[in-house]
Amino acid sequence: MPPPLRVIPLGGLGEVGKNMLCVECGDDIVVIDAGLMFPKADMLGVDLVLPDASYLFANADRVRAVLVTHGHEDHTGALPHLLQRLRVPVYAPPLARDLIDVKLRQRRVTGCELNEIDAGGVIRLGGIEAEYFRVCHSIPDACGIALRTPAGLVVHTGDFKIDHTPVDGRPTDLQRLAQLGAEGVLLLLSDSTYAENPGYTPSESVVSTALDHVVGAAEGRVLIATFASLIARVQQTLDAAVKHGRKVAPAGRSMIDNVQMAAAKGYLNAPSGALLDLRALAALPLDRQVIVLTGAQGEPLSVLSRVANNAHRDIALQESDTVVLSASAIPGNETVISSVVDKLARRGVKALTRATAPGVHVPGHASQEELKLMLRLMQPRHFVPVHGEYRMLAAHANLARLAGVAPENVVILEDGDVLEIDAGGARVTDRVPAGHVYVDGLRIWDVGDAVLRDRRMLSRDGFLVVVVPVDRATGKVYGEPEVVSSGFAAPGEGEELMERAAAVAAEALRAPNLDPLDEDSVGGRVREAMGRFLYKETRRRPMILTVPMEV
Amino acid sequence: MPPPLRVIPLGGLGEVGKNMLCVECGDDIVVIDAGLMFPKADMLGVDLVLPDASYLFANADRVRAVLVTHGHEDHTGALPHLLQRLRVPVYAPPLARDLIDVKLRQRRVTGCELNEIDAGGVIRLGGIEAEYFRVCHSIPDACGIALRTPAGLVVHTGDFKIDHTPVDGRPTDLQRLAQLGAEGVLLLLSDSTYAENPGYTPSESVVSTALDHVVGAAEGRVLIATFASLIARVQQTLDAAVKHGRKVAPAGRSMIDNVQMAAAKGYLNAPSGALLDLRALAALPLDRQVIVLTGAQGEPLSVLSRVANNAHRDIALQESDTVVLSASAIPGNETVISSVVDKLARRGVKALTRATAPGVHVPGHASQEELKLMLRLMQPRHFVPVHGEYRMLAAHANLARLAGVAPENVVILEDGDVLEIDAGGARVTDRVPAGHVYVDGLRIWDVGDAVLRDRRMLSRDGFLVVVVPVDRATGKVYGEPEVVSSGFAAPGEGEELMERAAAVAAEALRAPNLDPLDEDSVGGRVREAMGRFLYKETRRRPMILTVPMEV
Repeated sequence: MPPPLRVIPLGGLGEVGKNMLCVECGDDIVVIDAGLMFPKADMLGVDLVLPDASYLFANADRVRAVLVTHGHEDHTGALPHLLQRLRVPVYAPPLARDLIDVKLRQRRVTGCELNEIDAGGVIRLGGIEAEYFRVCHSIPDACGIALRTPAGLVVHTGDFKIDHTPVDGRPTDLQRLAQLGAEGVLLLLSDSTYAENPGYTPSESVVSTALDHVVGAAEGRVLIATFASLIARVQQTLDAAVKHGRKVAPAGRSMIDNVQMAAAKGYLNAPSGALLDLRALAALPLDRQVIVLTGAQGEPLSVLSRVANNAHRDIALQESDTVVLSASAIPGNETVISSVVDKLARRGVKALTRATAPGVHVPGHASQEELKLMLRLMQPRHFVPVHGEYRMLAAHANLARLAGVAPENVVILEDGDVLEIDAGGARVTDRVPAGHVYVDGLRIWDVGDAVLRDRRMLSRDGFLVVVVPVDRATGKVYGEPEVVSSGFAAPGEGEELMERAAAVAAEALRAPNLDPLDEDSVGGRVREAMGRFLYKETRRRPMILTVPMEV
Repeated sequence: MPPPLRVIPLGGLGEVGKNMLCVECGDDIVVIDAGLMFPKADMLGVDLVLPDASYLFANADRVRAVLVTHGHEDHTGALPHLLQRLRVPVYAPPLARDLIDVKLRQRRVTGCELNEIDAGGVIRLGGIEAEYFRVCHSIPDACGIALRTPAGLVVHTGDFKIDHTPVDGRPTDLQRLAQLGAEGVLLLLSDSTYAENPGYTPSESVVSTALDHVVGAAEGRVLIATFASLIARVQQTLDAAVKHGRKVAPAGRSMIDNVQMAAAKGYLNAPSGALLDLRALAALPLDRQVIVLTGAQGEPLSVLSRVANNAHRDIALQESDTVVLSASAIPGNETVISSVVDKLARRGVKALTRATAPGVHVPGHASQEELKLMLRLMQPRHFVPVHGEYRMLAAHANLARLAGVAPENVVILEDGDVLEIDAGGARVTDRVPAGHVYVDGLRIWDVGDAVLRDRRMLSRDGFLVVVVPVDRATGKVYGEPEVVSSGFAAPGEGEELMERAAAVAAEALRAPNLDPLDEDSVGGRVREAMGRFLYKETRRRPMILTVPMEV
């Protein structure tokens, strides 16, 4: 009897981002992807979020490899952190390998075993054999992975769509998928990001047509904002520019780095002289210029935001400019993106987004009909939807039942769930830690929730700190407390309210039997009295802290 | 020669919400609408935002009336505040009048002159004659207003769409609009909220069909979440429920109040016994129940959020429930709405939104083809787009030029701009105060920006307060400073870092020639030294405050 198959998602299930998933059989653990997540609106002050890899650290001797499906940050961004603590080989398709290499150098992480593997490649990892196969996604060299385990065949689609006319001419490998399906799939893990979207996701070729039209019709300069990793979009921009006799320059550190790397390694097909730097481009007439830049998500420090704020050193907006935001809003970014588009409109330029010019971007993820096609090609015994918020996983689970998977074999997992599959069926048997690890400046926090709670409280109502002077000799409160505050009261109203609040604190401190050096009792009493007073006066509850000060 | 026409938007131009606009001619000022805005994501801790009405207070003797177009909060919500300081008659269509009356009672604002006026009604306000005309919007009794001024005819559409099959059977009055157009329109002010949307906005009757289908197909209970003021949606829910042999109960304070008022006043057409309260409804089988509830925007305290959190006293979700979110996301609310839908999916219920079931909501605002129809009916000499973010106003201005308004007569205004129109043309001649007034608990702030800046800083990196003990006799620093902090460091790392930070502060305070009681110089020195130290250690910049404490 073979050992059971175990599947443990450590990130990306029940959320969009920081994808990481373990497949285990017997003594072997294989990790698929190690991504990061950009912070949500309520993760105040957080720069990045990583998956909690403590399960891997605790089982380091069994981890055979990290297999990367493609080069996006939500699949690779945790590697610099992970590889500092876990010495394990990494396998990735060519472009992903090159992008990871750049990241590891930037973070000065050395001594990693970083291997290239492309579609068709097979590697043995202990008792597990991994085979890469081609899928289409919004980055070249995207792959899915088939794992032959003692328990049976597991197929992970990676992020994918089924594009019959992709920009790089390498469509999702339907033949290989059909062969795998015929071989007999024990478990399919498939991308759920667009599982709520009916129909088909349009081909990338739609964008080629739209950009060609935009560049051809523009009177002046064209600025195309997109993700730095969306090399296919840069290729489409180049094609449109070359066709209409224009040159292209990248702007933004990550865009410049990626374009240079992609051109040098042959991922980008640019005629000689078509790619310039910004300065050389600026010497041409405006109607010969195209700029590809970062910032399509409205990121405040990106080139597009700086251009919209009239704060970019090299790019000053002209009224004849056409600006294209070639991206969908990542959920939560809608407001900042709107604000950037608004600023562009104020500057008088023509701003095109997916909402107003649908062809300028298509998503990289399969919609419902493509997901059903994948399910029918695979005919898996068991199905687990991966990559997505819970409602997306639930929508995908529903599609799987419609597409012939036995309802009891469709399992919705969330991060940390341990799924076991054997001849008797599939069941969740355990949970492992799988919370958020926050990167905040130079600090990495796996205990950051308390800090975020404090920040949320401060963000709403600010704080008051009450300094309580205590006579060193007698141990009694001596003199009046001082109150300092921020984020709570407006300048005008502040002084009078603070004086009255200080008086309330002083009154509370005159209570008998109070040990002024006992921070808990002093703090508790002052907080209660002042909190009540301030709520009555303002209906708000600022944070109140006390500091006893021996005098 | 007649006096020039002056148009001064005080809210709603360059933003969505808090609509308020003055039309002046000679000695007469007429105000159209007085709305509030819900706070944007960066207005931390703010409950509501009001327009700055100081221009009206300064010209109180010239203000003849506030004319309300319809009963939505972004057109009426500032009235309780405004009427406390400005004694001026209010005119509003019947439903709006009743809704305003409820609001004024709740806020205990008395002695207001609140008049009812309906489509076809005409009133004289000094030298200006105002005529109300019918438009369709997502609330019954919506009107536009024509103002006959000595300078000429001004038409304000209010919020509108052109729905030929509205639920209440009262379509936008195309005949009257055409007559006004024939009379000769000096200036058209028209709703821009959906000016970026190509084509036509679907009729409300689309929603009737969709809700009928949802209620007919549901196996269990149906919960329909929408705005409390969307009486038309409640009517459609009632119609679908009655047709399929179900009863309806409202849930949520504002929904219950509005449904009761609307049923009593005849705005709702409910067969006897069709409307129940929640308790009576609960006695019926699940497949006879429909609940209309608040919370379609994901508001954390609304009924829907509490139901999704399993925290509502009277409504426990069942797996057979169908939940409909019958609303579009107000920009900025996308994330909270997604999170509510996610919770519903986790509870196993069927959740339908506009994204997954397009017919369950249609917007109340005109799309591009309707806006062009309005422009062609009016044939105005001058055009000012109203109601919308700048990019929406710009899109509407573009439509006006396409629809035959002379380009030089299309003017994009923002809040506070003073537009003058006379025989010589239209130009912006001045600016008046028109910023945000924040309502924060019991406080109303017209100087709140500094507080919000502090809150933003606190929300990112928290704070440190350094208490500096100063010897009363010598005026020198005496002993070591105390540091208290929140929102900055995590529990574990905190203590050691705080000790080192305190040492840095102590070192800075040992500088010669430092007057410890001079808060600016002490504060500046400590902030600089600690700020540098903390940035080096953490790459973050928390707020640092100092308190000198005489000992």
